[in-house]
Amino acid sequence: MRISDLESGIKAIASDRVQGASELARQGLRLCADWCRTAPADDPHVFKKGLLDLGDRIARCRPSMAPVHNMAWLWRDRVVPLRDSDTDNLRREAAEIAMGLIRASEQATREAAKQAQNVISSHQTLFTHSFSSTVLETFKLARLRGVQAIISEGRPQCEGYKLAQQLSAWSIPVTLITDAQSGYFVNNAHLVMVGADSLLPDGSVINKAGTYLLALAAQAQRIPFFVCCESFKQRRDVTTPAELEEMEPDALGAPSVEGVQIRNVYFDITPSHLVTAWIDEHGIRFRETPPQPTAYRASGRA
Amino acid sequence: MRISDLESGIKAIASDRVQGASELARQGLRLCADWCRTAPADDPHVFKKGLLDLGDRIARCRPSMAPVHNMAWLWRDRVVPLRDSDTDNLRREAAEIAMGLIRASEQATREAAKQAQNVISSHQTLFTHSFSSTVLETFKLARLRGVQAIISEGRPQCEGYKLAQQLSAWSIPVTLITDAQSGYFVNNAHLVMVGADSLLPDGSVINKAGTYLLALAAQAQRIPFFVCCESFKQRRDVTTPAELEEMEPDALGAPSVEGVQIRNVYFDITPSHLVTAWIDEHGIRFRETPPQPTAYRASGRA
Repeated sequence: MRISDLESGIKAIASDRVQGASELARQGLRLCADWCRTAPADDPHVFKKGLLDLGDRIARCRPSMAPVHNMAWLWRDRVVPLRDSDTDNLRREAAEIAMGLIRASEQATREAAKQAQNVISSHQTLFTHSFSSTVLETFKLARLRGVQAIISEGRPQCEGYKLAQQLSAWSIPVTLITDAQSGYFVNNAHLVMVGADSLLPDGSVINKAGTYLLALAAQAQRIPFFVCCESFKQRRDVTTPAELEEMEPDALGAPSVEGVQIRNVYFDITPSHLVTAWIDEHGIRFRETPPQPTAYRASGRA
Repeated sequence: MRISDLESGIKAIASDRVQGASELARQGLRLCADWCRTAPADDPHVFKKGLLDLGDRIARCRPSMAPVHNMAWLWRDRVVPLRDSDTDNLRREAAEIAMGLIRASEQATREAAKQAQNVISSHQTLFTHSFSSTVLETFKLARLRGVQAIISEGRPQCEGYKLAQQLSAWSIPVTLITDAQSGYFVNNAHLVMVGADSLLPDGSVINKAGTYLLALAAQAQRIPFFVCCESFKQRRDVTTPAELEEMEPDALGAPSVEGVQIRNVYFDITPSHLVTAWIDEHGIRFRETPPQPTAYRASGRA
């Protein structure tokens, strides 16, 4: 692997607009593992320093996605104590740590989806927004119980289309709508189930823009609102405020007009008081605590 | 005017996806006036009966848009007592009634926009959704006071783009966003100002899908939510429940997949308890009464 491949690999993670946070976190770890195995290395000490720098860079490349940060940082933390006397050993061990974290993340996703089955009854209709690998896994497990799906498209990239296609391939009947119709259609669902890009310490949820509106409508119409994701989604960095990444305005496809600023804040925050329960690989936690306000700000292209 | 021109004129109103309810109501009346003046007529009695049938048809062609119904029905009501002894007189009088109603509607729109100025302060930012001729007029009057606009695109037709272009031509700074970002951006506005396709007797508002979500977010963040429209928007037909028209699923532009049903319910209902005040040509009415539930159902392609 050449340095140019590494750079384009990091760039691909930073600019990805379709995959969920867990998938991108694993993609980051795979990049680390590939780099460990095949990067040029003369001096093992310098090589190790490069690995730590790589973990640091990946950890910072998606500020709204906690698992990208958490898993790259976890990998980095476990690489720190490795001995750098033997490059081949270092390559093998550091790559194995990355692959082990990927397996742990995949296992946690499957376990979280299993836990989610406990809140889903047969023949129920689940409303979801955006593309979450944990929610996908949840549908995969629930498909034999005759569940149905309502999916909002997820402007601007419309990753809801991809999810609809996948669920349909599993013979799950799907209703596909614009994000703006969520307020009307949430009442046709038994429950809302979304993933998360990050969970904040107070239980509020960073997820694709539109999730907050869906949660408001669910609460107004007394539809349970579940967040299902592995615990790697918990934002561990408490030193900086949570950031909502802003993406290219071109993605909207709106005509460029002088005096019109197109904004594409890609995520929003759903406050914890709108969440019925949080589901992860360890179990289901229903909300008990009163709502806490969460400060947040837009980043990136603002 | 031939019968085929009349049919295509009615079809154009029924299938229009961009213009607001008031504009379409006037377009219906213009069609009536044109038909009065130029339709073939042998027997004045038969001709008059045709006019009444025309009023009836136009009144029913947009079930979510009260003014289309109200104005066509008002015209019909005033044509009923006209004498049908003289075709030329009948043509002139019936056409003049239609044109008079158009002028009254335009005047009411201007007056409502003038009333709206009373809730807008200089340099404020107004958030609006969809394309309303009354809101457009409101911005036109407010533009010299340095107001700014936040506009959600209004999927699936994105009529927000047209509004953004118009406001920008008046040197009003515009921020254009996806509908899904409304929850985040409403907090950047001083107030929300929307038009309406219909006002229901309890004060709830039929408007473009997404309005309800915006109102929920405005309430959650304590941003005032104003509805500004002429009184022709009040739904007078109380014999049938309010209908939310459903449009072509193709309009979403989503890929057609077996097992995936694409829905395009074009309107939603914002309950009255989310409305801060209703503005029309007579003045501003702040909400005092407690919320009332409103029954509604989707129609058309459901």
